[in-house]
Amino acid sequence: MGLQIGLGSRIRKSPFFDALVRHGLTHVTVYNHMYMPGSFGDPDEEYRALLERVSLWDVACERQVEVVGPDAFALCQYVSARDLRGMAVGRVRYAPMCDHDGVLLNDPMVLRLAEDRFWISIADSDVLLWCQAVGAERGLDCRVFEPDVSPLAVQGPRADDTMADLLGEWVRDVPFFGFVETSHDGIPFVLCRSGWSGQGGFELFLQDGSRGLDLWDAVWAAGEEYGIHPGGPTLNERIESDLFSYRADCGAAATPLEVGLERYVSLDRDDDFIGKSALLAERSRGPARRLVKALLSGERLAATSEHPWPALSPGGSPCGEVRVAVWSPKHDSNLCLALVSSDVAGGPFTTETPTGEVLQATHLAYFAE
Amino acid sequence: MGLQIGLGSRIRKSPFFDALVRHGLTHVTVYNHMYMPGSFGDPDEEYRALLERVSLWDVACERQVEVVGPDAFALCQYVSARDLRGMAVGRVRYAPMCDHDGVLLNDPMVLRLAEDRFWISIADSDVLLWCQAVGAERGLDCRVFEPDVSPLAVQGPRADDTMADLLGEWVRDVPFFGFVETSHDGIPFVLCRSGWSGQGGFELFLQDGSRGLDLWDAVWAAGEEYGIHPGGPTLNERIESDLFSYRADCGAAATPLEVGLERYVSLDRDDDFIGKSALLAERSRGPARRLVKALLSGERLAATSEHPWPALSPGGSPCGEVRVAVWSPKHDSNLCLALVSSDVAGGPFTTETPTGEVLQATHLAYFAE
Repeated sequence: MGLQIGLGSRIRKSPFFDALVRHGLTHVTVYNHMYMPGSFGDPDEEYRALLERVSLWDVACERQVEVVGPDAFALCQYVSARDLRGMAVGRVRYAPMCDHDGVLLNDPMVLRLAEDRFWISIADSDVLLWCQAVGAERGLDCRVFEPDVSPLAVQGPRADDTMADLLGEWVRDVPFFGFVETSHDGIPFVLCRSGWSGQGGFELFLQDGSRGLDLWDAVWAAGEEYGIHPGGPTLNERIESDLFSYRADCGAAATPLEVGLERYVSLDRDDDFIGKSALLAERSRGPARRLVKALLSGERLAATSEHPWPALSPGGSPCGEVRVAVWSPKHDSNLCLALVSSDVAGGPFTTETPTGEVLQATHLAYFAE
Repeated sequence: MGLQIGLGSRIRKSPFFDALVRHGLTHVTVYNHMYMPGSFGDPDEEYRALLERVSLWDVACERQVEVVGPDAFALCQYVSARDLRGMAVGRVRYAPMCDHDGVLLNDPMVLRLAEDRFWISIADSDVLLWCQAVGAERGLDCRVFEPDVSPLAVQGPRADDTMADLLGEWVRDVPFFGFVETSHDGIPFVLCRSGWSGQGGFELFLQDGSRGLDLWDAVWAAGEEYGIHPGGPTLNERIESDLFSYRADCGAAATPLEVGLERYVSLDRDDDFIGKSALLAERSRGPARRLVKALLSGERLAATSEHPWPALSPGGSPCGEVRVAVWSPKHDSNLCLALVSSDVAGGPFTTETPTGEVLQATHLAYFAE
């Protein structure tokens, strides 16, 4: 089914938007109240470019929540389920956030720009409101706002070559989840070794929205000899690479222990954080559901699943949902992420597609383990 | 430009979604992490159906934040800039919400279902997170969650006839911003006289998502003799009718005093609410900008403006933005909403379209005054 998206000022365009259109953008979605590019018309080629060459993505919709001031660390530490102590300036941590019941509300990465200044680089929910409310109601002395920052991702095996040609050989030494503030041709940005693929590369956090097209064009020119291609977050690749997608993989009512993020949750911290007691109780009794990666039987799926499909246990009872189903080139099979009851999560189950086809699911792994 | 939207489980379908597809849905947008129908392919006919007959809209994306418990009123009252005291069970108030700096973060209507139970019926931002954070951090004794509630709007001059045929003549006596809990054929819903048009009608707050298609089909059947038509929130009609759209009209950084919502903000309340001191200070000095409705020169706009256009004062200086520009059948002219400096808000200004055309704007009114 092809549905067009209405364009209007309620949803924001990114500073890179006109470049996307010029490169033949065909599909978008909406993320953090912004348009996010989905495809330029050839998903197979986009997958290949990401795995074999270099891919350029407008991920401006990965908004920043800036927290700055004397209590900035205290606020970030209290809203993060992960312990942020020991984090140096210039480094990043992936830090899930929960509500007071231990329910995941976002899974940002946190960048420390200065001792008292952070960017919370968010998935799709209004963390800005959450942090403003918590900070103000606790009387913390810090400012919480959305800065003019728009990430552009350069991903794939030739991302290092592309960025070295653009900025210099020094970029090869930027460590994973490390960043530097830099500029090119007067365009200020933070260069960070990160990105939502398993293929390596950088995110360039543009700090002047008026220079979006200049930055896009500069990276594009540097990448041409490496076969750069326009793209966006790539659903099958990110599942193959065990990258979690908040909402897609779990809706808005799952815990980090259910979805395989336990290693990023510092439950044994000696200080308090939002959701701690609920998560400790859940760890004691064990999570009720688990997110699993499974192979799916049947012919190659023509498109990504549009919505969750019911999952059934071997005995035929409802046991959860297949959240995402896609064709995986890596596995040469259909692949899915399913959020299912813990008692069936380690084994086979079935799912029924909207056309009534029953597919067999074969357990591959607990997600991200 | 035609862009397709990618469909996937990250964004939710409503309980009415399959009915929309059956009726020829062509355009959608995303609102509160759900697909919202935009058009069924003939905007002029959708406008006529709304003004002359009856229109059926899936507005499930108008999510509810339910607040229930001993401190439910205290929480709703503290997060609302409008005084909610004196509000009876079965009644609704339009109640803008601000952050601690007096910046608008949503403009919900609030339904009082019981002394200690409310639905905050929201525009597009995560008020759920805001209210959960404020409630928990203040130690208030109430539960804040998103219930299984999906509004369906029946709007237009024959909406009363449609609903009277379906439910009985008693529906004609439901007062504006009043509601009753009722059911039809075992489908439970709240029938409320409300809706985001100036043409009158109801919103049916479906309380069982599994019955969405049944409710849609029942209303459709009742409306057929009145010429019912599928539709959605209608951009030109809502501007003609002075209905505010959070984000579209102001981005996410305006105050209620700037956008014409002062009458819904109880600044002289004797109790505290979030944003009160900032709003009092703003009232004293006067808002820096104003939202105005203006006629625009030029040929009939072929489509809604895709993004804000710069506004220029008569002297040629930047003075704000045209947020939305559309063709208005009522005014037989292009019409816009512009957020401009207070010093030019009462008079003419100009704006430049993306193709470089300069349009003259003629002041009609301060928005909603």
